[in-house]
This record gives sequence, structure tokens and C-alpha cells, in this order.
Amino acid sequence: MAQKKRIKFKKPRIPKIPGIRRAEKRLKNDVPGTLTYTGNKEQKDINIEIIEYGPQQHRVSASKTINEALKTSKEGEVVTWINVNGLSQIDQIEKLGAHFKLHPLILEDIVDTNQRPKIDEYPEYLFVVFKMLYFDSQGVFTTEHISLVLCKGHVITFQESDGDVFDSLRQRIANAKGRIRNAGSDYLMFAIMDAVVDHYFIMTEAMSDRIETLEDQLFLSHTENDITQEIQELKREVLRIRKAVYPFREVVSRIEKLDNTLIDERTDTYLRDLHDHVAQVAESVEIYREMTWGLMDMYMTTISNRMNEVMKVLTIVSSIFIPLTFMAGIYGMNFDNIPELHYDNGYYYLLGAMVIVFLVLLWYFKRKKWL
Amino acid sequence: MAQKKRIKFKKPRIPKIPGIRRAEKRLKNDVPGTLTYTGNKEQKDINIEIIEYGPQQHRVSASKTINEALKTSKEGEVVTWINVNGLSQIDQIEKLGAHFKLHPLILEDIVDTNQRPKIDEYPEYLFVVFKMLYFDSQGVFTTEHISLVLCKGHVITFQESDGDVFDSLRQRIANAKGRIRNAGSDYLMFAIMDAVVDHYFIMTEAMSDRIETLEDQLFLSHTENDITQEIQELKREVLRIRKAVYPFREVVSRIEKLDNTLIDERTDTYLRDLHDHVAQVAESVEIYREMTWGLMDMYMTTISNRMNEVMKVLTIVSSIFIPLTFMAGIYGMNFDNIPELHYDNGYYYLLGAMVIVFLVLLWYFKRKKWL
Amino acid sequence: MAQKKRIKFKKPRIPKIPGIRRAEKRLKNDVPGTLTYTGNKEQKDINIEIIEYGPQQHRVSASKTINEALKTSKEGEVVTWINVNGLSQIDQIEKLGAHFKLHPLILEDIVDTNQRPKIDEYPEYLFVVFKMLYFDSQGVFTTEHISLVLCKGHVITFQESDGDVFDSLRQRIANAKGRIRNAGSDYLMFAIMDAVVDHYFIMTEAMSDRIETLEDQLFLSHTENDITQEIQELKREVLRIRKAVYPFREVVSRIEKLDNTLIDERTDTYLRDLHDHVAQVAESVEIYREMTWGLMDMYMTTISNRMNEVMKVLTIVSSIFIPLTFMAGIYGMNFDNIPELHYDNGYYYLLGAMVIVFLVLLWYFKRKKWL
Amino acid sequence: MAQKKRIKFKKPRIPKIPGIRRAEKRLKNDVPGTLTYTGNKEQKDINIEIIEYGPQQHRVSASKTINEALKTSKEGEVVTWINVNGLSQIDQIEKLGAHFKLHPLILEDIVDTNQRPKIDEYPEYLFVVFKMLYFDSQGVFTTEHISLVLCKGHVITFQESDGDVFDSLRQRIANAKGRIRNAGSDYLMFAIMDAVVDHYFIMTEAMSDRIETLEDQLFLSHTENDITQEIQELKREVLRIRKAVYPFREVVSRIEKLDNTLIDERTDTYLRDLHDHVAQVAESVEIYREMTWGLMDMYMTTISNRMNEVMKVLTIVSSIFIPLTFMAGIYGMNFDNIPELHYDNGYYYLLGAMVIVFLVLLWYFKRKKWL
Amino acid sequence: MAQKKRIKFKKPRIPKIPGIRRAEKRLKNDVPGTLTYTGNKEQKDINIEIIEYGPQQHRVSASKTINEALKTSKEGEVVTWINVNGLSQIDQIEKLGAHFKLHPLILEDIVDTNQRPKIDEYPEYLFVVFKMLYFDSQGVFTTEHISLVLCKGHVITFQESDGDVFDSLRQRIANAKGRIRNAGSDYLMFAIMDAVVDHYFIMTEAMSDRIETLEDQLFLSHTENDITQEIQELKREVLRIRKAVYPFREVVSRIEKLDNTLIDERTDTYLRDLHDHVAQVAESVEIYREMTWGLMDMYMTTISNRMNEVMKVLTIVSSIFIPLTFMAGIYGMNFDNIPELHYDNGYYYLLGAMVIVFLVLLWYFKRKKWL
Repeated sequence: MAQKKRIKFKKPRIPKIPGIRRAEKRLKNDVPGTLTYTGNKEQKDINIEIIEYGPQQHRVSASKTINEALKTSKEGEVVTWINVNGLSQIDQIEKLGAHFKLHPLILEDIVDTNQRPKIDEYPEYLFVVFKMLYFDSQGVFTTEHISLVLCKGHVITFQESDGDVFDSLRQRIANAKGRIRNAGSDYLMFAIMDAVVDHYFIMTEAMSDRIETLEDQLFLSHTENDITQEIQELKREVLRIRKAVYPFREVVSRIEKLDNTLIDERTDTYLRDLHDHVAQVAESVEIYREMTWGLMDMYMTTISNRMNEVMKVLTIVSSIFIPLTFMAGIYGMNFDNIPELHYDNGYYYLLGAMVIVFLVLLWYFKRKKWL
Repeated sequence: MAQKKRIKFKKPRIPKIPGIRRAEKRLKNDVPGTLTYTGNKEQKDINIEIIEYGPQQHRVSASKTINEALKTSKEGEVVTWINVNGLSQIDQIEKLGAHFKLHPLILEDIVDTNQRPKIDEYPEYLFVVFKMLYFDSQGVFTTEHISLVLCKGHVITFQESDGDVFDSLRQRIANAKGRIRNAGSDYLMFAIMDAVVDHYFIMTEAMSDRIETLEDQLFLSHTENDITQEIQELKREVLRIRKAVYPFREVVSRIEKLDNTLIDERTDTYLRDLHDHVAQVAESVEIYREMTWGLMDMYMTTISNRMNEVMKVLTIVSSIFIPLTFMAGIYGMNFDNIPELHYDNGYYYLLGAMVIVFLVLLWYFKRKKWL
Repeated sequence: MAQKKRIKFKKPRIPKIPGIRRAEKRLKNDVPGTLTYTGNKEQKDINIEIIEYGPQQHRVSASKTINEALKTSKEGEVVTWINVNGLSQIDQIEKLGAHFKLHPLILEDIVDTNQRPKIDEYPEYLFVVFKMLYFDSQGVFTTEHISLVLCKGHVITFQESDGDVFDSLRQRIANAKGRIRNAGSDYLMFAIMDAVVDHYFIMTEAMSDRIETLEDQLFLSHTENDITQEIQELKREVLRIRKAVYPFREVVSRIEKLDNTLIDERTDTYLRDLHDHVAQVAESVEIYREMTWGLMDMYMTTISNRMNEVMKVLTIVSSIFIPLTFMAGIYGMNFDNIPELHYDNGYYYLLGAMVIVFLVLLWYFKRKKWL
Repeated sequence: MAQKKRIKFKKPRIPKIPGIRRAEKRLKNDVPGTLTYTGNKEQKDINIEIIEYGPQQHRVSASKTINEALKTSKEGEVVTWINVNGLSQIDQIEKLGAHFKLHPLILEDIVDTNQRPKIDEYPEYLFVVFKMLYFDSQGVFTTEHISLVLCKGHVITFQESDGDVFDSLRQRIANAKGRIRNAGSDYLMFAIMDAVVDHYFIMTEAMSDRIETLEDQLFLSHTENDITQEIQELKREVLRIRKAVYPFREVVSRIEKLDNTLIDERTDTYLRDLHDHVAQVAESVEIYREMTWGLMDMYMTTISNRMNEVMKVLTIVSSIFIPLTFMAGIYGMNFDNIPELHYDNGYYYLLGAMVIVFLVLLWYFKRKKWL
Repeated sequence: MAQKKRIKFKKPRIPKIPGIRRAEKRLKNDVPGTLTYTGNKEQKDINIEIIEYGPQQHRVSASKTINEALKTSKEGEVVTWINVNGLSQIDQIEKLGAHFKLHPLILEDIVDTNQRPKIDEYPEYLFVVFKMLYFDSQGVFTTEHISLVLCKGHVITFQESDGDVFDSLRQRIANAKGRIRNAGSDYLMFAIMDAVVDHYFIMTEAMSDRIETLEDQLFLSHTENDITQEIQELKREVLRIRKAVYPFREVVSRIEKLDNTLIDERTDTYLRDLHDHVAQVAESVEIYREMTWGLMDMYMTTISNRMNEVMKVLTIVSSIFIPLTFMAGIYGMNFDNIPELHYDNGYYYLLGAMVIVFLVLLWYFKRKKWL
């Protein structure tokens, strides 16, 4: 499991604006509907995993090309889940699109990793885009673009790279745990989205831990480090998760209300439940947002408190020794006629006076509670 | 009564994101609809309390297992309130669910303490989730997850642990005070939610007291303590209460508008009243939120004012004694020819000049109102 | 008139959360629908004022008990305004409720001073709750809970104590000024609410004066007083007025849209006008809110400016005299061989050098505009 | 043209809450529907200007009383614009109201300068209230209350004082420029409102200039003046303009959607255009609002930067000369046995050491970029 | 390509309020519907580019006058795109308007560069206004006003100056790439708007780069420069882009929902896609807005941290040397009887004591982590 490894957050830069890469490519004479992979997870191969199952059967196969994969897949009384890993092989995606008669704009959105979560309803299928947030095998926080096409008896998912959050789902299918083997492709769609949302919870927990850590740094260890930068990064993380979660909440809400024959009404209850969960994540993200923004104010007061501390030391030392130095200065003068200088115990009287001044000032600062 | 004890606020940490525990457990191959208790109030036993009443009769019984409890319960012209305390015994909950034919997702929500307040309408029953806020027997501030199932003649409530806010309700039923013995199960549902909301008022009062205390600390005792942390904790408390109250307001509003045969129209007036109360709590929470956020700004100005104070002491002392020391320094020089040194009263003239400088500076700072 | 006296604002504490007292009392086994007076204006007596009027007649009577009052009241071609002062005599309120067949929840709301403004429509009557803001006979800012029941030919109002804002209305009825003697009870309801709203204007003016005073304190007299506390109090006042005004705006808006035979359509124009006025007050409150919140920022810059001032004095004095003292220190050294010491005019040369240094620094600080 | 004169902003005080004056007057026994002029532009006379025009004719007349004016006005195939200047002569307004059968509440709103922008639809006429913002003949920023009554063939406008923004409109009518002479009274209403909105643009430009000036003061001249007060005043201006513009946008939007025979459908296109313009002003006001609020933060950083500057001077001077003074102090001591004092070149060695310390510290501060 | 040149941002001033110039001009007796070019890109000539294409043909022509252009244009089975560059030649625009029977208000909006993005539906054509954001041939950030008229078989676009973002679109038409040659004028409209939105992505990327640069300046190089001004400018840029993007999102959304025969339903999918893209840009702008506003807070903490740094140096130096100087001062006094002065090693004892004090203070500041 990813969370057993040490969780690292990639040094985040300002997230490149989604679509900028495609925008730049298209400026070089491309046409709307042209496929351009805009992510940064280039994979040499495309890995296609096909899981077919029904109440009685269960078959898993894998292939490296679409053609091979489509041969493998046999339609029948079963649900077929075609899981495509790797979006950089544009031609393979196009072949699959042609086979399933997907609209060119859908194919464009599948490979455009900057596409925000959305749902499009077509006569023959539903097309859903969302984001998978997870810690990859190195424990690095990763956002991955997922698209899902739901047709009668089929679910096709497209991911940027191998490695995902569906392992437990695969095992449930394999072991025939729960309803899934007896349910249709719509329930599979729900199960996939549900697995994604479960990982949103993991993400928000990681965020909560980071906020706690920063607060502890602020209050307990009183580190001198400038944590402004870390807070700013945290803000970006929150905005990034929010950007994945908020539109997805709308997507789930729209699926819930869809009146589409592809979705069995028994699945509705599960979708409602899913909507509850996404709403819960969204609420938490909002709370973390408030906490993160509040951190800045807290940091500000911490800095000010520290400056107060510094000022007090300066003031106490100066206020005590400057007057004393003045007193010493008086009797360092070379006037011919300074009678005190010739007192036998003049020196000791002065030292005594200095001690008294010292004590009075000490008492004064004590009373002011500066000491 | 809880509020007679000393009220303590548990040291709050960033609230773990709801669902994280279930998310983690489900990652270990669980299925949606699987029951996982996600709270932290593990109880060995399940305590089931059954209260049956009608206009004439009233019978209370208790048992440790669902089977026993269901034997006890006799349906008739009475309203039966089955109050289940303890959610960690999953199998018991499942038995009860099977007996009352509750949907698996409902059972899941009953034991998922992170479920946000909601209402689901099923053909045979209503399912409501909300949060109970109270000071437990040790006077510690506690959030407890409550679920309620309303069917014809039955109300089943599920709590995480023994100890709740329904004592006065039990006595009203026992003593046949008010309408309750003559009303149906819908009125019992109202009475339960009403008792919960009454405790929300207690919570907000406690919050108001804490804000007042912090303000007094800021303005009156001028403590040097860093109260940033306390303010941050208070913010979390407010967000936590808000998270319980706001969705509950929506829930009550939806119940009010429900066109369901389970709810008698005479109960509608009471539900509207309940809605008023929740709205009132929500408004108060919003006001406390503004006050709490404002505390941070106030603290900031307090720090700055204190720094001003410190700076003034430094400035006054330095501005007075540095020039005087300079004057003394002049006549401490060893030039062969400094005529003033040989004046008979040179020393006294200088002391006089110093006193004058001293007084002028004092007057200057007085005029500037720094003294 | 109240506003001729010196206006005082009661030292405001965090407003106790509405309902807390009732919540506490009900926890002692009370039932919804039980009457509990939750205000702090306990009055020994209940004073009932009855004003009956029609186009031709006008009769005012007063009594100390409901029974007596109901005897007095004669229904006819007239409008009867029963104005009840004093809510702490629960039994009297109950008698009145029984006579007019008011729902127990209405009676509960009448004596619950924490009830937020609302309107309930019942088959036979309308029930409106709102808040009266005024300066009482001692010139203290007071919020008072008012309820109003409108039935055919009757308006019953309930106030917490004697003393209200309806004097001019009473005189208009007495002197048959304006439409009122020819209009029905719905117009009387309008006139009562209109009088309340007119006093909202007085309140907001008082608030505006306080903001101005604080700004003047900040900018003109540059007082050293910590006005954080005063600003915080002002914030609370604004939130308090807002809490009275905002829900009342909704109430008036709902009355306007009501399709109820109790309200004559000729009164609609007046209600629309009233709605305009409440909206105007709400807008003003919003502006004062922004101004009040802005005061905190202004205060912060004022503090910082003052600190700058202090720092400059320190810096100028130190930067001038520390180098000069150093120069004097040089020639206070006891080296055997310091040739300058033996120059005839060495002392004067040094003094000259010091004057030059002094003037250069002065010019430097002048150029920097610190002087 | 006003904008050629030097534009002055009246020293703004907290705007008196609208309605307060009327509220106070009504408290002296007035009745809703009673006319009370609440502005501060008392005029001895009422000046009535009547412009009648049609495709062929155009006649302008003026009079001092309503009676005279109504005699002058001849209804025919023409559009008549009755422009009433001066609202303090209540009786004149009432006569006009009686002549045109205006509802008493309309007359009240005409003279109540605090009435917020609104539109009321009456069977025979439309009543619109809005605000005219302009620089008067002295170049002072002025808000003036305008009401407009549109009936078949008539437009009656009410202004507080002579002097308005309609000069170019009058000339267009006189010179038969554009559509106006061939259009009806609805187009005249549009043209009047359009002229008012055009002046809103002038206002926002003036505001933009003031913001620029303040920014320049902050960044370029680095004045030491406290501009907090000016920023606060600017905030008030923005809020004041916003208060005029925002409700007016709603008013125009409602007129646009009105299904009223008084408004020809050819005028609809113009009204849509007007709505666009008001929306544009509203957007600009919102931007200026953000900029103005941002000024406060900028000012705060400017103050802090300046304090940093001051602190650095202090620190550099102190850090250099305090150690040097200490060194001089060492050799000013009177110990019998300080061998260095008797070195031939001891004095020069020490001066050398001081120069080295001086240079090292200088280099240190240079490296820290404080110099 | 513009982005290969060095990108410069024009020194932004407060954007002149849109419409102010027209407002001023109209004040000089103009009529609504009068054409006034309000931009600052005066061009001597008007350059008209005509592109006619169909599945088989493709013809490009250019002319300097409308008359000439209209002669050139031959209507047939083709789509004609008339692209007018230069809006300052009012009479030419008017001729074109007359030829295509455009409403005067449309012509006014075409030349009013301050018109906000909008869509107007007329019986014979659609009129859309939007803003083109691009880096011009000098690499300067430019906002340009574009209007588009869509009629059957025609698209007319109006730009302020030569140079635009449509080069790739022209090539697609020339090379018959994609659907465009087989689609109607509605698809051309989509393609034009799509090219504009693609450049919005370029703009937001540039913004993202600027924010990163500022953050780096804050955190890494710790420049002493006052970046307040730069942040303020960035704020304005964000507000400026937002002003172009937000209304355009509404415009696209309205076009999407339009039920107009001019728009083929096959184009709907593309419009939906366009709407997605604009929404994406809007989301990004919102994120950059939050980041930009946050920069100010970050800068504030950076300043405070620096001041802390400065204060610490001052405090350490002063706290160490002021007491030492005092010690030296003691033994610089001229009392007759100071026994220590006559100790043989008195001087060395004192030096030793000074070293100890020095080390203790050093250790103290080390422990406080100020060193």
C-alpha cells in the first residue's frame, strides 16, 4: 500500500494552466478534435487490461495493442471492463475510438489531461472525466486524469499510466465479493468512482497531517524557519484538490439525476451514497482551506511576538546600562573642581547608587512583566 | 446534569477527515454496503433500551442482544422506541437491520460516524442522520453520531455509547407530560431531534463563554501568553459545531417539506418550530464565527500596542541619557586646553545644563503624550 | 422623546445565545409548547391597553388582568388593538391565548424573547414576531421582543415591558390623522411595523455617530487609548442590529406576497413601501458593517504609524549622539602620545568637527524627511 | 462643462442613514403618505420647465408655480416633459400630484431624497426613482435624488435643485438630432436615464484618478502623510456610488422585462443597451472597490518598509559606533598599569584597529544589502 | 509566434473606465446610436480581408474600402468571412452596416471598445462582442475589442487593428484541414471564438510565470526591492483578464442554449467544448487571483521577518557592548580612591571579566537561537 511508504509532496510550482500545452500545439495549425496528449506521463507502451465477468465467469486478459485487445474481448452475458493505461500513443486511442464509435471531441478530452471533471451524455454512451488523487509507488502525491465511457455491458477507462487505485476493486471482482458480479456495467462505473473517492479521503488526511505539522512548528518548536513558503505551497495543494473535487461533486450530482436507460434504478441508491461522500470530502477541503489561510495570520502574530521578545531584551539592557554609563561618565570628567571625587568613599557611594538604580529598574521591568 | 460539572474542552487536533478510517478499511477489499464502525467509542456491549407507550400504557425494558430485544418488543396500539447504544458490535446491528428490512447502505451509514447529517426517504421508512453535541459525564465536550429510523409505530435510534441528552424526554414519556403519549411515532422523532437541538444551545453558550474569556484576557489582564493557539482551537470548535448544525438545518427543512404518510400534519407545526430553532443556532454559530475570526485581528493590534509601549520606554531612556552621556564625554576629554574645566563652578554649571536638557526632553515626551 | 436624552450604549457582553435559557429550563422536564419567559425584563404586573376605533369612534381603556380586558373589549364595526405589556405573567398570556384560540406554539414564541423574527400563517390569524430597537426612558439602547397577532378586526401585540415606540401612532389614531381611522386591522398591523422600522433608522443613525466618533479619535485627537475593545463592541452592536433587521426584511417580504383575506389589497402598496424601508435599513447596516470592520485595519495602520514616529525619534537621537560620543571618547583616552591633545586649539577644532558632523546628520535626516 | 473646473470632493462624513430625517419628523405625529423633504438642498422657489415636442414642433416654457405650468402645458400629438426643480415646496408637489392623480406614497418618495432607486408600476403610469451623480457648477461631487413619472405622452421629472445633466439632451430635442423627436415619451424616459448613466462614467473616472493619485503618493513621492483617512474617505465614496448604481441596475433590468403598453417595443433595444452600460459601471465600481480595499494593505506594507528603513539606519549606526566607543572607553580607563598606553604609537595602532573594525562592519552590512 | 519574443507587460495604469470617452463625447450633443471609436489604436486605413471558401473552393482577397470589398464578395454555396481591421474610419463601418442592414446600436457597440462581452440575437443575425488577449508583434500584452456578426453564409468580424490570433485558422481553411471547409458559417464563428480562447490559455500561462517570478523574488533572492507595486499591477492584470473572461463565459453559455436556425446542431457539441475551455480559463484566473492576493500577505511576513533580522543584529550588538562600555566607564572615573586602579594586574582582571561577560552574552543569544 502506498501509504506505508514515506509520503512526499512534490515540490509544487504554480500549476501550469490546463490546456496551455494543447493551446500551444494547436497554434501550430491543429484542428479542434485533434488528439494531443498534454500530460507529463509519457509511456512507451499502452497497456490494456480487460476484465470480463458475470455472475458465474471471470476472465482477465492483457494486451499491448488495441487490435489484440478487441479480439480478446467477447461480448455476451458479461460485463467487460477495458482499462487502458497510457495516453501518449494517440493512434491506439483513435483505433479504440473508431471501434466504439466515440465522438472525436471525446477522444480529444480523453488525452487532454487538463480537461476538468465533466459528464457528457451521448445517445449510446455516457462519458465521464474525473481526477484520481493518490500516492504513487514512490509515495509521491500524484494527480492523474481518468476518463470513463459507459455503454451497455461495457466500461472503458483511460488512465495516464500504470498504477491506480483499483486493486481492491479487482479483488472484489475476482473473489465475487459483494453485489458486483451480479450487477451491470453501471454498478461497475459506480464502483470505479467510489474507489477514486475513497482515495480522496486519504489525500485529505495527508493534508490534515501537514497542517498539524505546520501548527506544531509554529507553536511548539518555535522554529526560526520561514514557513511562509510552506504555507503558500499548502495553499496550492488545497486549491489543487479543490479543483479536482468540486467539479466532480457536480458530476456525481448530475449522474444521480440522469434519466438514462444505461443506469439501473437499483444503482441510484449507491450513487446517492457516493454523492454524500464527495460532498463530505468537499466540506473537509473547505475546512482545511480556512485552516490553511488562517495559518498565515497565525504566523504573522508569531513573528510579531518574537519581535516583541527581541525588543524587550534590547530595551531592558539599554534602559539599565545607558543611565549607569552616564553616571560613570559624570565622574570621568576632568573638571578641576568636582568635590565628590575627593570623598574618601566617593567611589563606593557611587557604586551603591548604581546598584540602587539597577535594582529599581529591574523591579520596574519586573512589574511591567517584561522579565 | 452535565453542565454542573466543570466544562472541559478536549484538546482538539485537526479533526481527522470523516471517512478516512472507513476508506482505509475498505481499501483492504471491502465492498460498499459493508459495515465498519469508524468512531472511537468502542463499547464491549450493545445496550438496547425499549420504551413502549400509548395513551394508557408505558413500559421500559432493556436487553443486551438484538434477539432478546425483539422478543420483548410487542407491536400494538403503542409507539415503540428502540434505542440502541453502542455501534461497535456490527453483527448485532446487522441482525436488527435484517429484522426491520433496512437497506445495507443505511446500516453502513448507521455505523459510519463520519456520515454527515442527511435524510433518506425509503418506501417504508425515513432514515435521518444527525450529530449530538453534549458534555459527557466527565464534562468533556463530545460529538456523537446518531441515526434514526422512523417507521409506522416505531422509532429506532442508534447511538455510539451510553449517555445521551434524552433524559428529560424519557421522563416526559414516563409522566405523560405534554402531547407525547397521545401522539404517534412521528412526534417522537420530533421530540428526539428537539432534545438534540436544545443541547446545541448549551454548546453555543459554552462557546460564547470561551470567546468572552479570551477577550477579557486580551483587554483586561493583558496577559503575555500567546493566545494564538487558543484562538486557532476555538476556530476549530466553531467549524466543528457548524459542520454539525448547518447540514442538520437542511435536513429539518427537508423533513418539514416532506409529503410522507409517516408524518402526521399536526406534527408539521412542531417541525416548523424545530426548524426555527436550528436556524437560530446556525445564526449564532455564524456570529461566533465572526467574533472568533475577529479575535485574531484584535490580538494582532494588542501585540503591536505592546511593542509600541516597549519602544517608547527604549526611546525615552535612550533619548535622554545618550545626549547627557555625550555632554559628560566632552568634559572627560584630555585636551590640554579646555578652559571650562578650570572654571570654579564649571562642574556645577554643567550639571545645571544637564538638568535643563533632561527637563526639556521630559517636557517634549510629555507633550508627545509618550509619558 | 428618547433621543433628546444622552444616548448610552449598555456595555455589551457577548449576547447570550437565544434559547439557552429556555433550553436549560426545558431540560428540567418541560414540554414543547410550554411557556417560559426568557427575557430579562421581569415585570410584576401585566398592563393591557385596549384601543378601539372606527371612522367615528375612538376609545382607550387599560386594565391589569386579561379577564378585565376582555370584558372591556367590545367587538363591532371597529378595529380593536389589544396591547399587552409584560410577558412574565405566564398565566395571563395563557388566558388570552385560550380566549383567542391561539396555538400553544404561538404562545411559547410570544414569551420566548429569543425567537427570531418570523411570520406564521394560521387559518384564522397571522402571527408575526419582530424586534423593537429603541432608546428607553434612560436613553439606554434596548432590544425588545414584540409579537403581533392579526385577526379580523383585531390586532394583539405583546411587549416585554411598558414603554414603546408607538406614541405617535396612538396620537394619529386619537386625532384621526391620515387613513388609519378608515382602514382595517391590516393597516393597523402595517402602522405598528412601520413605527418599529422608523426607529431602526434612529438606531442606525446612532451607530453612524459612534463610527464617526471613533474615526475622529483615530485621526484627529490621536488618542493613545486602546480602541480595539470599543471597535469589538461596535462590531457586536452591528451584528445585533443585523440580526433584528435581516430576518425582518424577509418577514415583510413574505407578508407582501401573502395571499390572505386578512390583508386588504389597498394595504399592499403600504407594505411594499415598508419593505423598501427595511431594505434601506439593511443596506445601511451592511455599509456600517464594512466601515466598522475597516476601522480595525485603520487602527492597525495608526499604531504602526505611531511606532514609526517613535522609532524615528530614537534613530535620530542615537544616530547623532552615538558618533559624537565616540569622538569625545577618542580624546578621553589616556595614551601618552596623542598629539592632538596638546594643540592649543585642539579642543575647539574638535568641537567644530562635532558641529559639522551634527549638521551633516541633521541635513541627512531632513533630506530623508524624517524631521 | 463641470469637468473643466477643478474637481473637489466634499469632505465626506459618514452618510446620514437615509430616512433618518423623515423618521424623526414622522415621530412628531406624521402619517405614512405625508410629504417631508429630507434633502439638504432647500430652494425657495420651485422652477418648472416644460418642454413639448413632436416631429414638427418644439416649445420650451418655464414657470414658478404648478398652476401656471399646468396652464401652459397643452396636450396633443406631442410629448411633454415637465421637469420640476426644487422639492422643498411641498404644497406645489401636492398640487401636481393631485392634477396627475399620483398615489400619496409616490409623492412621499418624490420628496424623500433617501429613497433608494426603485420602480413601481401603477395602472396609469410608471414611477422610477434613481440618483444623479455629477459635479455641480462649483465642481463639487453631488448626489441628487431624481424621480420620474412616465405616463402616455408625458414624462414628469423631479429634481432637488436647478442644475442637472440633461443639457445635451435638451439640445438634441431642440435640434431634432437623432430619433428623439419622432419617438414617444418612453424614449424620452430612456434618454433621461441614459444621460444619468453617462455621468456615472464621469464619476467612476474621477474615482479612478483618485486611486491613481493615492497609489502614486504611496509609491513615488513616498510622502510621510497619513493617507489612512483619505483611503477611508475613498471607501465611502465607492460605497456611495455603489449604493446608487447597484439598485439602479436592477431597476433598468426590471424596466427591460416589463410588459407594459407604455413602453414601445422599439425602445426595448435601447433599454437593453442602457442595461449593458449600467452593468459596465457596476463592474467598474466593483473593480475600484477591490483596488481601494487593496490600498490599505499596500499602505500597511509601505509603513512597514519605512520602519525597516529607519531600523536599518539605527542598527548600522549603533552597531558601528557602540563597539568603537567601547574600544575608546577601554583606553580611557585610569588603571595604573595599562602598558598599551605607554607605547609610542599606541594611539595610532588603536586608530588603525578602529578603522579595520569600521571597515569590517561596513563590509558586513554591505553584504547583507542593508547599505 | 509572439511568445518567442520577450514578453513585456505594458506599465498598467488604472484602466480608464470603459465608456468614459464615449460618455465625454456624447456629452457634446451626441445621440445614442452615434458611432464613436473609443479605443487607442487609431489606424489611418481600414483593411478588409475577405475569405470565401466551400468544400471545393477557397479565395482570399483584400481591399481598402468597404465598397470595393462588397464588390469582391460573391455569395454562393460558400461561406464568406469578412474581417474588418481598423475601427477608426467610422464612415466605412457605417457603409458596411447599411449594406448588411445592421441596427445602429450594433454599429455603436462595434466601435465602442469598452463594450463588455455580450451576445444579442436579432431576427436575421447574431451579434457577439468579446475581447482578444494576445502579445502583439512587439510582445506587448494587448487587449483588443472584437465584434462578430453571424448571418446565413456570412461571418463579419471587426478588429481594432491588423494583427490577430487567427493565423492558424486561416491556414486550416487554406489547407482544408479538419471539418471547416465542409461546415457552415456557424462553425466558422465557433472556430474564431475557439482561437481566441486558446490565446486566453497563453495569457494565463504568462500570468502564472509572473506570479512564480514574484514568489521566487520573495523567497529566494530576498531582494530588498519594494514589490508592492508589482503585486498591485499583477492584481490589475488579473482583474483585467477576469473582466474579459467572465462575461465571455456567460456569452458562450448563452450561445450554447440558443435555439436559432443559424446554428446547426452538429456545431452544438463544439460549442459545449468551447464552454468547457472558457470555464477552465475562468477557474484558473480565480486561482491566480487567490495566489496574487496571497502574495501581499506573504510579502508582509517577509518584511516582518527582515525587520526581525535587523532588530536582532541591533539587540545583540547593543546588549553586548553597552554593558562592556559601562564597565570601562567605571574605571575611567577620576575618584581619588578607586583601589582596583592600583592593582598591578587590575587592567588584566577587568579585561578577563569583560571576556567572560562577552562569552556569557554570546551563549545567551546562541541559546535563544538569535545567532
